[in-house]
Amino acid sequence: MDNGKRYGAELLGTFLLVFFGAGTAVAALNTGGVVVVALAFGLVLLALVYVFGPVSGCHVNPAVTLGALLTGRISLPGAIGYWIAQVLGGIAAGFLIFALSNWGDVPDQTGQLGANEYGATINLGGTLVLEIVLTFFLVLVVLVVTSRTEQVGVTGLAIGLALGTCHLVAVTLDGTSVNPARSIGPALFNGGTPLSQLWVFIVAPLIGGALAAAASPLALRAARPSGPRRQAGADTP
Amino acid sequence: MDNGKRYGAELLGTFLLVFFGAGTAVAALNTGGVVVVALAFGLVLLALVYVFGPVSGCHVNPAVTLGALLTGRISLPGAIGYWIAQVLGGIAAGFLIFALSNWGDVPDQTGQLGANEYGATINLGGTLVLEIVLTFFLVLVVLVVTSRTEQVGVTGLAIGLALGTCHLVAVTLDGTSVNPARSIGPALFNGGTPLSQLWVFIVAPLIGGALAAAASPLALRAARPSGPRRQAGADTP
Amino acid sequence: MDNGKRYGAELLGTFLLVFFGAGTAVAALNTGGVVVVALAFGLVLLALVYVFGPVSGCHVNPAVTLGALLTGRISLPGAIGYWIAQVLGGIAAGFLIFALSNWGDVPDQTGQLGANEYGATINLGGTLVLEIVLTFFLVLVVLVVTSRTEQVGVTGLAIGLALGTCHLVAVTLDGTSVNPARSIGPALFNGGTPLSQLWVFIVAPLIGGALAAAASPLALRAARPSGPRRQAGADTP
Amino acid sequence: MDNGKRYGAELLGTFLLVFFGAGTAVAALNTGGVVVVALAFGLVLLALVYVFGPVSGCHVNPAVTLGALLTGRISLPGAIGYWIAQVLGGIAAGFLIFALSNWGDVPDQTGQLGANEYGATINLGGTLVLEIVLTFFLVLVVLVVTSRTEQVGVTGLAIGLALGTCHLVAVTLDGTSVNPARSIGPALFNGGTPLSQLWVFIVAPLIGGALAAAASPLALRAARPSGPRRQAGADTP
Repeated sequence: MDNGKRYGAELLGTFLLVFFGAGTAVAALNTGGVVVVALAFGLVLLALVYVFGPVSGCHVNPAVTLGALLTGRISLPGAIGYWIAQVLGGIAAGFLIFALSNWGDVPDQTGQLGANEYGATINLGGTLVLEIVLTFFLVLVVLVVTSRTEQVGVTGLAIGLALGTCHLVAVTLDGTSVNPARSIGPALFNGGTPLSQLWVFIVAPLIGGALAAAASPLALRAARPSGPRRQAGADTP
Repeated sequence: MDNGKRYGAELLGTFLLVFFGAGTAVAALNTGGVVVVALAFGLVLLALVYVFGPVSGCHVNPAVTLGALLTGRISLPGAIGYWIAQVLGGIAAGFLIFALSNWGDVPDQTGQLGANEYGATINLGGTLVLEIVLTFFLVLVVLVVTSRTEQVGVTGLAIGLALGTCHLVAVTLDGTSVNPARSIGPALFNGGTPLSQLWVFIVAPLIGGALAAAASPLALRAARPSGPRRQAGADTP
Repeated sequence: MDNGKRYGAELLGTFLLVFFGAGTAVAALNTGGVVVVALAFGLVLLALVYVFGPVSGCHVNPAVTLGALLTGRISLPGAIGYWIAQVLGGIAAGFLIFALSNWGDVPDQTGQLGANEYGATINLGGTLVLEIVLTFFLVLVVLVVTSRTEQVGVTGLAIGLALGTCHLVAVTLDGTSVNPARSIGPALFNGGTPLSQLWVFIVAPLIGGALAAAASPLALRAARPSGPRRQAGADTP
Repeated sequence: MDNGKRYGAELLGTFLLVFFGAGTAVAALNTGGVVVVALAFGLVLLALVYVFGPVSGCHVNPAVTLGALLTGRISLPGAIGYWIAQVLGGIAAGFLIFALSNWGDVPDQTGQLGANEYGATINLGGTLVLEIVLTFFLVLVVLVVTSRTEQVGVTGLAIGLALGTCHLVAVTLDGTSVNPARSIGPALFNGGTPLSQLWVFIVAPLIGGALAAAASPLALRAARPSGPRRQAGADTP
């Protein structure tokens, strides 16, 4: 696999993740409730892992890429390439949601293009703790499950539904980030409070991802010098 | 497998997909919300893929068959046979929903037999863009996941839940097509606006399916001259 | 495996299926909506198939056993034993729901112990057609998916979620039977209209199961004289 | 695997299970309904089983550990270590929910930190019976599914969704325990009625787990003297 394919997969994958997830919040949060948003984020990621996992590892999330970097699964130049692709994908999704809302006559049930925001039901400190714990869980699942060759068929199931779980608990609080690219896209096109709070949804998920990298040896056996390659997120670009 | 079996599988599979999906909208959209319709479409397809995947590839969707045609997985005569079977299956489902509503005393919670319609919460341009993006995602998942022999067990899971995701985002907007056969059946028996708008839900999904065929090499390794056959949708009738 | 284990598995499995499914309707139908009942029936069966599938085939449904009988997977004496065990399991579940409602102070959100009933939102003819089509789908999934040795891991997933799909479409109409044992248990302890209509929820699912047996060759390759044994529902008691 | 890793996995796993499950109840029970709480408990456990299953068996529940002890899968000293780790994990989760509610400005939609309580919709006797039956089902699924080497990929799916099913039926009644560690954490920080009723949610799940151990031979073949090791919950610390 060449690097162009990897970056393309990360860009397209992140675009689809953010469009389906935040787009469902815009289209159905009030009438459908928390469960529709959580399932949208979870199920789209489940499918994406099976599509792009063997290509790029299907990180589609800068916090996951940071975890992969800190556990030696990807080089720093590779990670930077992934981050750029992921942010561009998130911005493209934010633009599409903006376009459907402004030119496509779609009523915005979130009032802010599905962007993350804290304040009404959680304060700044709570948001930092919450996003760190949630991203820790998500990235731990990714790092561990993709390392087990005997579980190759369950990667998308475990990773997608782990993201869905994060959204179940936090949609009513801050809209759930656990992914800086998911927060950047909608915030850029919405502006206002979500844009001024954007740093929180970049910093906290990255801290959570780093902590997951630190904790991942707890769930993994000692690395073998010449063990088999992992299924997803394994190849250094 | 002979062609009669394949066409029969596509007809029966499309009938069940459209009946369960659109039928759930008719029976439970208002009282159950978006999540029941999205899960109905997603879970019935999940099961159908495991039943009919090894027989016909379980396209049950003309846009999927177009993607298979453009990637050389099915011949043009075979595709035409699939399309006829799928449309007949969708019409049979539309008739059953019509019969239950008119003669079975089932109140229609959609007011239009579960047919697709735009206008109230999305305009024509938005619908075209939305259906193209959603079908692009769905057909990309189908083409890629069915091509990986090491993921044989996850085809139904990934494909079914990808369809469920499409419905989560779009049920409140246009009722979600991403499948011309799903739109044709209910529209024929309902008439009115859904019938006059039917071309949108035929054209846009087919464009999305064609774009997915074009993008699928991004997620697939180069074809090997004598590689193993794919699990589903692989054999040319 | 001896026959006692098989019958015990069918009795215990049917008890758990009916208790969790109909019990969720009693506890949460009004406040939780259709989705909770459909997921309860679907997810409990998903787990049960992985527990009891290798023991008895995990039919836990007389219509499934009829389909197995008509396709030569079980002998008539074996089927009769299964039917008795399933009905006893359903009755035990009906008694537990009755006990929790009458002596455990649990408010009954269905007003009838989760029993099936038609009339308010579907008439007799509609119910017969609906239950036949739904059971046809469910039993077809069971017969086909358990026959494919290469799909051993997906049996519970496909079968459980197929049952969940049946409930998504029909909970608001007749409460969804597709399983005579599921209907008998609650109706016996509730009496009244559900008891007088009970024959419908015995006859229609059995017809659907028989039709599925007739249609199953469409999705199966020709039987090989000495092929490998199927995972579930295969051994004749 | 050394014992420290096992105990660490049980502590961290139980912390995440209780935080995501009870935390979702606190954040979204009223606005999201039963389905969000049930899916949160079910999906977080699904992912955790794939992460910690190969490390500690991912019991994350004292009733599961009791079942493992009674079936000879773990030694008494090992079980005591597991129980301590699980209770500490549950207490840590209770503290985090308490902190988010008291210092993080998160409104508590349960009014009691997601703790279990009976009385309003079920009496003491009903609660005992309910929790015993539910835990019996959950622990039976764990003991049987983790014993089948041919089903290695489905452990998390079956176990997680079995827990989700328990919550679907009982969230409206007593908040669903089936896990003493899940009940202890929130009750300790909430005090009041949940603390005075805590013994019920310790005793009943343990009885259910013991009954599951007694019933598990029904679904398992006779042990082979030198059979392969089980995937999860198999190694004695």
